[in-house]
Amino acid sequence: MRLTLHTDFALRVLIQAALNDGALTRINDVAKSFGISKNHLMKVVNDLGQKGYLDTVRGRNGGIRLMRKPHDINIGRVVRDTEDELAVLGCLDQTGYCRIERVCVLRGAVRSATNAFLAVLDGYTLADLIKPHKALSNLLALDRQAGVRAV
Amino acid sequence: MRLTLHTDFALRVLIQAALNDGALTRINDVAKSFGISKNHLMKVVNDLGQKGYLDTVRGRNGGIRLMRKPHDINIGRVVRDTEDELAVLGCLDQTGYCRIERVCVLRGAVRSATNAFLAVLDGYTLADLIKPHKALSNLLALDRQAGVRAV
Repeated sequence: MRLTLHTDFALRVLIQAALNDGALTRINDVAKSFGISKNHLMKVVNDLGQKGYLDTVRGRNGGIRLMRKPHDINIGRVVRDTEDELAVLGCLDQTGYCRIERVCVLRGAVRSATNAFLAVLDGYTLADLIKPHKALSNLLALDRQAGVRAV
Repeated sequence: MRLTLHTDFALRVLIQAALNDGALTRINDVAKSFGISKNHLMKVVNDLGQKGYLDTVRGRNGGIRLMRKPHDINIGRVVRDTEDELAVLGCLDQTGYCRIERVCVLRGAVRSATNAFLAVLDGYTLADLIKPHKALSNLLALDRQAGVRAV
């Protein structure tokens, strides 16, 4: 039971963009910070753009920035928006998946469990995730301090 | 975020075995009931045997049965025992997965969310899952009623 890398990377992009507090963040810097392939990251950024999370400025001095304030970005919502498959069992998103689905107690239990998972994440906004602002910024700026910033 | 088919099938095997109330259940019948490959099912049954859930009786009239009473089999425990990967993000089962993991708020949030998911399942035993006993038995006995029982 693993969230996709798409969701994983989306959350990390949002954290790094939020730490930059309105300034543009270069995709190369995010790729470098987290050791993620730039190609994969571009897909994530495009998706977050289409879904109203990120503005993208093209060109040499371009980059990304949040479209909304961090406290207006709910983490449960982000996961619902980025995760293709939140149905942890096939019967939760298909009919005819299993012969007993009409009366299955397990199906309801697993649906409740998934709702409980999301409800915890609904209790967090992106502003909560960047509360250790200084420590996070320091960790993500290591390359820059070492003078090997990606270009 | 999907549970593995291994866990999915394990839960269904346990439900069918529980409905048989101590009598032997043939693996062919479970395979037929749920449209699952017998080979895949054998692996699941072996795993459930090793983990103390199922007794296996070999031979022509063999089959499987629960090692414990349904109300002594907790569903959260079954999922923990059968699911390889309950770490929904890589940072939950590896160190060095992500640069910010030491101070990451998201990591704690996702861990809490996973615990909330499992806590819901901890509220169910196998006895709860077979409460619609008659309806479940009828649905799973369709082949037999139609005279096309697997042999």
